[in-house]
Amino acid sequence: MLVVKIGGGTGIDYDLIADDVSRLVRAGNKIVVVHGGSALTNEVSEKLGHPPEFLTSVSGYTSRRTDKRTLEIFEMVYCGQVNKGVVERFQQRGVNAVGLSGIDGRLWEGPRKSVIKVIRNGRKMVVRDDFTGKVEKVNTGLLVSLLEQGYLPVLTPPAISYEGEAINVDGDRAAAMTAAALSAETLVILSNVPGLLEKFPDESSLIRKIPADEIEQFMDVAKDRMKKKVMGAMEALADGVGKVIFADGRVENPLTRALEGEGTVIGG
Amino acid sequence: MLVVKIGGGTGIDYDLIADDVSRLVRAGNKIVVVHGGSALTNEVSEKLGHPPEFLTSVSGYTSRRTDKRTLEIFEMVYCGQVNKGVVERFQQRGVNAVGLSGIDGRLWEGPRKSVIKVIRNGRKMVVRDDFTGKVEKVNTGLLVSLLEQGYLPVLTPPAISYEGEAINVDGDRAAAMTAAALSAETLVILSNVPGLLEKFPDESSLIRKIPADEIEQFMDVAKDRMKKKVMGAMEALADGVGKVIFADGRVENPLTRALEGEGTVIGG
Repeated sequence: MLVVKIGGGTGIDYDLIADDVSRLVRAGNKIVVVHGGSALTNEVSEKLGHPPEFLTSVSGYTSRRTDKRTLEIFEMVYCGQVNKGVVERFQQRGVNAVGLSGIDGRLWEGPRKSVIKVIRNGRKMVVRDDFTGKVEKVNTGLLVSLLEQGYLPVLTPPAISYEGEAINVDGDRAAAMTAAALSAETLVILSNVPGLLEKFPDESSLIRKIPADEIEQFMDVAKDRMKKKVMGAMEALADGVGKVIFADGRVENPLTRALEGEGTVIGG
Repeated sequence: MLVVKIGGGTGIDYDLIADDVSRLVRAGNKIVVVHGGSALTNEVSEKLGHPPEFLTSVSGYTSRRTDKRTLEIFEMVYCGQVNKGVVERFQQRGVNAVGLSGIDGRLWEGPRKSVIKVIRNGRKMVVRDDFTGKVEKVNTGLLVSLLEQGYLPVLTPPAISYEGEAINVDGDRAAAMTAAALSAETLVILSNVPGLLEKFPDESSLIRKIPADEIEQFMDVAKDRMKKKVMGAMEALADGVGKVIFADGRVENPLTRALEGEGTVIGG
């Protein structure tokens, strides 16, 4: 079992990824795809007159301010435009994809964190009524049923809170939880960089290999969105995933190359 | 088995419908929900600077001009905002809904009609590169599998062409095809009118009962979007659905009332 996370950043080539994933599915690999849609959500939010806002938590993580209207736009982009665009790409390649969000079938369930402590202009503040949270439970029954029927699951945030509300969750960490729940051998996280960079954004400073027990030390090396990928990798490895690979989603055969060892290989 | 189509027009009360459908699901009824999103798509299209355009075919049917960009916006609204909003409503009521479009799992498959003959300003014209079509095949295997696992399927256009392209299809007729494929006893079509009106828009002119073999005569009574509902009803009844009910989606217990005989009952 292989879980592939496709980032939502600019430059990601969905067609090349779909080519490669389709080839691997046809070769008999069981794959679950997870994708984001962050860059496009920013764009659509601007156009719809509800510009994106990002919060920095007191522990240094960046997340999207998700009020009710943002959540709607988020769902339009992630579950509508991007998810159906990805599913259509697979269908055109003869792979019978099924797109689902984390709220469908309570696929990704977890606590909502409606109150967030943030740093704004150097001051600690509290933001309320946010629709964010994290994935604690994965409905593997639904995923396994789809895989057994020959479908390719294509998953995307939001997730669902224990109270039944849609919540914005980090896609990388949701992919990590999914890989762990399915006891996947490998989690590949494709983004618009070649992997974890020692000196971001210098792509020649790619870190090639990290032993599973040393990953925590690399939290400081990771910048911005890469932080959550590293955190996802730690969670996945701790929960029994064989290895996690951060690789480049802008190139031909991105998944095959990642599985052959390109990018940053963690554990394994 | 019961198939419920929820219209996408203004005035439809999704909360009241979700209350009622949830009650019936908990009472043990096997239900499949199909919904639209037309009014909201018009609104979002305007806001995104790609205003909606409607075509009138030479045979008198109205349909949305669906170029590639319209299809994207259509997916944002139907598969994103509306579908996930409906699924979330069910989840909050303790019903484990799964939202899918017709492209997921090739749920609704059929021919694309890229060339449409239309009447524009009184003249016959040809519109090319349209992404519309109709549903000919329903993937009942996926639906039955979900129902057997206790999920409530919540379906929405687009469908998928035989060539793997997303295509805009009429939701009423897709619901009719779904009811027929599942051999449903009843198809209920909820919209923002009380049923088929003898003198549209006079709601007191509601037609209460139509024998199955007389429905064709009512094609002329039906105006605008109601035409496709009547056509869907004809197709459903011809394909073995027990009865079709056109009912009001703006009231409390809309489905229960429809099943008790309110609205326009066709066949049965």
